[in-house]
Amino acid sequence: MKIGILTGGGDCPGLNAVIRSAVRTATDHYKWEVVGFLNGYKGLVENKTRPLDSRAVSGLLARGGTMIGTSNVDNPYAFKEIINGSRVTHDVSDRVVKTYEANGLDGLIIIGGDGTLATALKLYKEKGLNIVGVPKTIDNDLSATDYTFGFDTAVNIVTEAVDRIKTTAESHDRAMVVEVMGRDTGWIALHSGLASGAHIIVIPEIPYDIEKIAEKIYERKSKGKHFSVVLVSEGAKPLGGNITVKRLVDDPSNAVRLGGVGNVLADQIEALTKIETRVVTLGHVQRGGKPSAFDRILCTRLGVEAVNMVANKEFGKMACLKTPFIKSVPLEESAHNRKVDPSDQMIGEARASGISFGD
Amino acid sequence: MKIGILTGGGDCPGLNAVIRSAVRTATDHYKWEVVGFLNGYKGLVENKTRPLDSRAVSGLLARGGTMIGTSNVDNPYAFKEIINGSRVTHDVSDRVVKTYEANGLDGLIIIGGDGTLATALKLYKEKGLNIVGVPKTIDNDLSATDYTFGFDTAVNIVTEAVDRIKTTAESHDRAMVVEVMGRDTGWIALHSGLASGAHIIVIPEIPYDIEKIAEKIYERKSKGKHFSVVLVSEGAKPLGGNITVKRLVDDPSNAVRLGGVGNVLADQIEALTKIETRVVTLGHVQRGGKPSAFDRILCTRLGVEAVNMVANKEFGKMACLKTPFIKSVPLEESAHNRKVDPSDQMIGEARASGISFGD
Amino acid sequence: MKIGILTGGGDCPGLNAVIRSAVRTATDHYKWEVVGFLNGYKGLVENKTRPLDSRAVSGLLARGGTMIGTSNVDNPYAFKEIINGSRVTHDVSDRVVKTYEANGLDGLIIIGGDGTLATALKLYKEKGLNIVGVPKTIDNDLSATDYTFGFDTAVNIVTEAVDRIKTTAESHDRAMVVEVMGRDTGWIALHSGLASGAHIIVIPEIPYDIEKIAEKIYERKSKGKHFSVVLVSEGAKPLGGNITVKRLVDDPSNAVRLGGVGNVLADQIEALTKIETRVVTLGHVQRGGKPSAFDRILCTRLGVEAVNMVANKEFGKMACLKTPFIKSVPLEESAHNRKVDPSDQMIGEARASGISFGD
Amino acid sequence: MKIGILTGGGDCPGLNAVIRSAVRTATDHYKWEVVGFLNGYKGLVENKTRPLDSRAVSGLLARGGTMIGTSNVDNPYAFKEIINGSRVTHDVSDRVVKTYEANGLDGLIIIGGDGTLATALKLYKEKGLNIVGVPKTIDNDLSATDYTFGFDTAVNIVTEAVDRIKTTAESHDRAMVVEVMGRDTGWIALHSGLASGAHIIVIPEIPYDIEKIAEKIYERKSKGKHFSVVLVSEGAKPLGGNITVKRLVDDPSNAVRLGGVGNVLADQIEALTKIETRVVTLGHVQRGGKPSAFDRILCTRLGVEAVNMVANKEFGKMACLKTPFIKSVPLEESAHNRKVDPSDQMIGEARASGISFGD
Repeated sequence: MKIGILTGGGDCPGLNAVIRSAVRTATDHYKWEVVGFLNGYKGLVENKTRPLDSRAVSGLLARGGTMIGTSNVDNPYAFKEIINGSRVTHDVSDRVVKTYEANGLDGLIIIGGDGTLATALKLYKEKGLNIVGVPKTIDNDLSATDYTFGFDTAVNIVTEAVDRIKTTAESHDRAMVVEVMGRDTGWIALHSGLASGAHIIVIPEIPYDIEKIAEKIYERKSKGKHFSVVLVSEGAKPLGGNITVKRLVDDPSNAVRLGGVGNVLADQIEALTKIETRVVTLGHVQRGGKPSAFDRILCTRLGVEAVNMVANKEFGKMACLKTPFIKSVPLEESAHNRKVDPSDQMIGEARASGISFGD
Repeated sequence: MKIGILTGGGDCPGLNAVIRSAVRTATDHYKWEVVGFLNGYKGLVENKTRPLDSRAVSGLLARGGTMIGTSNVDNPYAFKEIINGSRVTHDVSDRVVKTYEANGLDGLIIIGGDGTLATALKLYKEKGLNIVGVPKTIDNDLSATDYTFGFDTAVNIVTEAVDRIKTTAESHDRAMVVEVMGRDTGWIALHSGLASGAHIIVIPEIPYDIEKIAEKIYERKSKGKHFSVVLVSEGAKPLGGNITVKRLVDDPSNAVRLGGVGNVLADQIEALTKIETRVVTLGHVQRGGKPSAFDRILCTRLGVEAVNMVANKEFGKMACLKTPFIKSVPLEESAHNRKVDPSDQMIGEARASGISFGD
Repeated sequence: MKIGILTGGGDCPGLNAVIRSAVRTATDHYKWEVVGFLNGYKGLVENKTRPLDSRAVSGLLARGGTMIGTSNVDNPYAFKEIINGSRVTHDVSDRVVKTYEANGLDGLIIIGGDGTLATALKLYKEKGLNIVGVPKTIDNDLSATDYTFGFDTAVNIVTEAVDRIKTTAESHDRAMVVEVMGRDTGWIALHSGLASGAHIIVIPEIPYDIEKIAEKIYERKSKGKHFSVVLVSEGAKPLGGNITVKRLVDDPSNAVRLGGVGNVLADQIEALTKIETRVVTLGHVQRGGKPSAFDRILCTRLGVEAVNMVANKEFGKMACLKTPFIKSVPLEESAHNRKVDPSDQMIGEARASGISFGD
Repeated sequence: MKIGILTGGGDCPGLNAVIRSAVRTATDHYKWEVVGFLNGYKGLVENKTRPLDSRAVSGLLARGGTMIGTSNVDNPYAFKEIINGSRVTHDVSDRVVKTYEANGLDGLIIIGGDGTLATALKLYKEKGLNIVGVPKTIDNDLSATDYTFGFDTAVNIVTEAVDRIKTTAESHDRAMVVEVMGRDTGWIALHSGLASGAHIIVIPEIPYDIEKIAEKIYERKSKGKHFSVVLVSEGAKPLGGNITVKRLVDDPSNAVRLGGVGNVLADQIEALTKIETRVVTLGHVQRGGKPSAFDRILCTRLGVEAVNMVANKEFGKMACLKTPFIKSVPLEESAHNRKVDPSDQMIGEARASGISFGD
């Protein structure tokens, strides 16, 4: 037997760990062959591969990134190519089938986010490919699984950063705004806010009132606590509106990218409270590098079970954590649908422990 | 209203985080008073306390240990004291009731292991004290909860240590035996073994055959992998027997403590395989210091919910993680009863990914 | 005897460690009294103090920040105050003398940057105060000492961040621009660039040619290395000019702070190379939190020797590392004067090992 | 031109970083060929090699261990082999010359401790090989260089471990004995003791009086500090004698390795003070894994300069840090000769800050 494996979408700590255990299980345990497709669906469309065996994945468990590369675009149903000098977007899903057959595959493990897995589902349904998925979203916004891999690592990285930033805030009597990942959902901000003892957490699911944020900072000051830490998801929104962050490219030698909601909040907080305010945007540091122990275990398990699912012909499904089990779940459930519900127990706990959500 | 709090048993990362959030919730949210009893049940028997408010627990989230101290002994039903120069062990549970009443308590939160909580249950049942528990066992061997706090931190510490040790093993073509916590159960070894890519995991629940361990090391060597890492729980046992580790105190100036199963395994592996073998016993490094983000979140939640349970008069119960909820569970379920079952899914996954259990 | 201590200027890992060892040496070893002035010179002008003894500094060695606070402004020779509702800037150095005498001080230890120490020198010379300095600059730009404290910690933090970012760059075939501290000097970028294996280092002392940076990225691509990491000091400048980063505050609800040179470089690199480029600005994460072992040792030594200097009446001097010794150096040498010299041995080593400086 | 490289002696964080920068400098900068000899002198005697180029050393900067292996034995002047079934030890230095010539080498970089470099010096003097050395001793006991690589990493690892252990000691009112590397010298204990705030440091250069250690612990207790941390070098010795640690192998199924001085101290402290005492032996965790930023910089510089020395024909010398320069020093100075002098400034500073040396 022979299987393929590919990783799609943004980088996420643990991708290599999934690849490693899937390859080991397939080659050493089942005695199958494994081939990796390079740079996500691109490699599948263009049949760019590298053979994978136990030796090839040696030392990979603790390494960030994905050894077979990934890409954000390149849905084979709407593939972008340059043909005869002009840019076209067309359906090349037949090429995927050709690649699949040319490699003599008995199964294909696809690790990726909702976009990647929606395509995987289509390829399974429409083309009959033997696909097994492993869901990947660093944002943890998937109800089919208790935790998505990479999330625990991201939360640890943010927590360590806030640990550092807090001491500066305290020494200088400052407000510090820390912007973290989470375009649509506040799980990273919520978890790392609880872990690091942030004073205010601002998330997309709970629109903020800047006056309430300023009030909380004042209230702390009145109790002799002259510093505050505000943790904000990149997708946070003010009550009754959106922030429009403009891009200024006034001259080519001074093209600048503008900051996001963190910068907006910092300016507003400083204006309202007259307390010196600084902003830190953690950015890509959150999604790369060595995974935490929790994520390495989760990824190792997901890799093994994805291969087991191929062995059991559980196609059109994905491997998910239902503590303490890894279970197979239909690919139909791969949409990123888990938002923070303001009535969640955890939100109540955060409030009870003294955290404000700026509402 | 006024509540008390105490911590009993061995140190565990996150104790301070539970105390911090319980105190904040009680004082800031419910506007109650809180008093801490010093050094576990000892403080309760002897009425040694310190008042706790929001300021007293400031900066505690990331700090290891317990700010109110702990002790391993001192069950008030069999309390050891020196009376008139002679050592007695007697029932002083009435003194506990006196302390409880003298402090005008409406509730008492007890954080501790199975011994501590068994006593808590007795005090609740026999003396009618308004007790709420928070289970603590770094070994994660409690079926009432998905994870016990401190466990994730311990697994991260072991994983980082094995990451370091592996490179030495590889450079020197050595076998390295790493002994970790787990007198009765192998959860720490199993999880950190998966996380760190150990080659052999030896746990109490699966008696080991030293020949099988040697075989695995040979097998690796025959594939050109001249090094191996063996992760062993302190409570691991050989097939059909026990290891008796003797204590040598032959003269007072040279009293030495003897090593445990890690040393035994290392000597046997070296003897059988002729491969240079070294042993590292991680010991107390595993149970102290800054908790991981996961544990800080879990502890913050447990502290809040323990106070909520007092508010809701859910006495005789303890706060447990049932992902993603914290639920209250009868104190009767506090016995450390969760062993690794050799037929667990996770054991199968470990085997499939190439790990031997020495059986 | 009785001494005072104050910390001025920006936060820097290790401030607390200096305070701790100075207090311990003064109180336990010399049996003196110690008083801390709050928030830098402000506390000295306004006589705001807290007594410091061995217990007060307990647990401080590993904690970031400064327990007696700091402030950036407040030079007593040009002190800003609001008098009768209007803002004045005037010389209040006499109030400093009054505070000094009111506290009955025999010596005053001042920990701070070049501004803080220039004032310290003036107070020593003009007012005859018994001042001993400890130089502080996270940028390591002081020729009087081999290393300034906080620098090693900052370099470790940047190095770990780049370790993480590199794996994402590699997985996505991206260029990543990482902006680090260093307004006037490139020591942090140079050291952490060597430590993390950055491909291009851009520092204030070597004006960059954006074409050369693009060339280096191309050259790497042509060798099959599709990703690059550019480490840039915040004060980096292009050949023959400066970057003017404008501040856009077009309407109150959308006030944004603009990015710095990192953003400029990222946009230019993407425009020139067509390679997807991302930027990370590490910001305040670099200057807070737990100091590295190197910095804790250095700070402990500096604190002890500053007190020894008071005991030896070596006033008007500061404690500096001249490996392996701590020596006293005239405060006149406290100006931040150590720039990276493009002909430094270390620059040559960086180039030989394959690093480009964009020149 | 073509050069060789080998690593000898015990593992040390940074070996790979030296190899990486030496290879890059030689191949990319000088356009030479490089060959690595496997497992120290063994590879040189048996001509076991692997070619090294820029790609082969990619990703090596942060990885512990040595990619070309190392070995502790195998001095070619007293080489152990099995010939016709019997074990012989003989001079095979001519085989080294043969290997050197067969590979057409113009230079040979040897990275290792005093044994390894003493042999290197002999090969340079007696056989005329173009040898350049890089000294390696994790113990930092070499007067020719300000710091040896690996030392800063080891000190950081010990410091982090003591940070963890301290919280447990404090929670339980215990004495904790932590045994660290240092058979002949106390540099690691001294530096990490200062960095971690140990209360007592016991080193080989200052024989300890167990009564003085107990006194210090009592003194702390009398001040309300019920816990103490004792950091002890593995080579520490009591006043007027040695500790004889016996090896007990009474029956094959129960072979145990006995503990070292840490265990002895712990038993004696507990006996004398009646304070519960625990011991942690850090062992191999200290010498493996990811190097600190300081060590990565130092190693990168050493690798470059070793190659520069070959280019400049500075043979019979080794690359050493003379802050801030890397300088070449005769191989004659490679003996590990730098002990802690009880009159060192740093010892005085440690005492002033409250640390006892048990004397």
